[in-house]
Amino acid sequence: MCKLHINLYLYIMDNKKQYTELLVDPSSFLPGVSIDCVVIGFDLTELNILLLQLKKHDLWMLPGGFIHLNEDMDQAATRILEERTGIKLPYLKQFHTFGDVNRRENTKFPGVNHMLGEPFEKMIAFLEKRFISSGYLSLVDIRNCAPTPDAMSDECTWIPVNLLPVLLYDHGDIVKKAMEQLRSRINYMPVGISLMPEKFTMKEFQTLYEKILNKSLDRGNFQKKMLKLEFLVRHEKKLSGGAHKAPYLYSFNKNRYNELVEKGIGYIN
Amino acid sequence: MCKLHINLYLYIMDNKKQYTELLVDPSSFLPGVSIDCVVIGFDLTELNILLLQLKKHDLWMLPGGFIHLNEDMDQAATRILEERTGIKLPYLKQFHTFGDVNRRENTKFPGVNHMLGEPFEKMIAFLEKRFISSGYLSLVDIRNCAPTPDAMSDECTWIPVNLLPVLLYDHGDIVKKAMEQLRSRINYMPVGISLMPEKFTMKEFQTLYEKILNKSLDRGNFQKKMLKLEFLVRHEKKLSGGAHKAPYLYSFNKNRYNELVEKGIGYIN
Repeated sequence: MCKLHINLYLYIMDNKKQYTELLVDPSSFLPGVSIDCVVIGFDLTELNILLLQLKKHDLWMLPGGFIHLNEDMDQAATRILEERTGIKLPYLKQFHTFGDVNRRENTKFPGVNHMLGEPFEKMIAFLEKRFISSGYLSLVDIRNCAPTPDAMSDECTWIPVNLLPVLLYDHGDIVKKAMEQLRSRINYMPVGISLMPEKFTMKEFQTLYEKILNKSLDRGNFQKKMLKLEFLVRHEKKLSGGAHKAPYLYSFNKNRYNELVEKGIGYIN
Repeated sequence: MCKLHINLYLYIMDNKKQYTELLVDPSSFLPGVSIDCVVIGFDLTELNILLLQLKKHDLWMLPGGFIHLNEDMDQAATRILEERTGIKLPYLKQFHTFGDVNRRENTKFPGVNHMLGEPFEKMIAFLEKRFISSGYLSLVDIRNCAPTPDAMSDECTWIPVNLLPVLLYDHGDIVKKAMEQLRSRINYMPVGISLMPEKFTMKEFQTLYEKILNKSLDRGNFQKKMLKLEFLVRHEKKLSGGAHKAPYLYSFNKNRYNELVEKGIGYIN
């Protein structure tokens, strides 16, 4: 039953395909509630958001879906992300629930218009009702992910957060809220353990903070503050042409990192 | 239509009363979603939670209710709190949505058992379905509030957070999560502007932080850290018997307080 709505959309989006599934029944889903996942990936240069492009439409959206009646909301988030993007992240964290009446007014889902006839009646009625949506956030190192579009999407890819297209419904606001939370999180816990590769330079780490804060930071001051928090371990120098100018590599001291998360201590910028 | 479910419960809880309302119809509510409000009040000694006691039952619960189809979720929270407790707080802040399948298993709502017969069929069907619940938080100065029980409650009162009775559904977990959020908030913004009276002593302010953190703090260290953040204004001494030992009174510098909230700077304990 899990892929029910995906099969439905597959049919709707591709008119040539015969309708072979009889299971166009949304009654296994909790009504009124959806889930949208904001997966933020860092490639050492930019922060990116994982987006899906609706099949045959120039319309982008966050990976989202519905909650099964017998499923915890947190479990649903993990399942939905995997079904829609192929990426399995067990630690998606709920960050806000979006409940404005008009949250789906701006950019509507065009799929509903294609659903004609009796087999879709229940699904149309389900989709056209009001939904609130719980946003789930995860931070990942882009190079560990291989996004794969699902049956209703042409594309599943990373888009830089400062170059986002118009998104479905209020998904633009959902991304904005996620970015705000990430920005404020910097003040009370370290950020980066899931976004950075195992070893990185201080400059690469500073770029992450600059992209999150959306402003330049003073290099000396950043390094001083970060080293003072004692969650970075210094390693050998990064090999490059001019050896005497090669920067040191760092990694995270996980115990200390988690201690700072626990205590609520971060980088006050 | 707003007081629909209150009238319903009024009837159910009082068997002698004749059924006079025909509006026992939950179709104006968003299905699957409820709201529960955690209002935390400080009386200069203890942190307290605002609770309702169900009429004729020894069962306590958070003030909660449902969202009208034409109402934003944030508006619903304000309306629900006012309908159920008489307290109007425009700045309730959503803090988490609780979506476990079994969240209503522990302590069930006994009211449903009293609903017999045809007029309640729709309402029973509505209430017995699965709900997720969005928790909303507000911090208040107890002396500015006059809680009043609604028609389905015998009591509406403050209970110290360390003396809470068993609560309905997962309301105990909802309070716990709200307290955790308040505890972590101390690290990245000042707390207290809505909890304290206009003028207060440093000791009273320290008590607030101690109750939130659930541990004793060093007096000198606390005062030093707080004054360094520069959001407290010192006034005259508090009048008392031994004038030379009288403590200073303080109030909040609202601009600086809001600046710290904005910047994400608080008291790192």
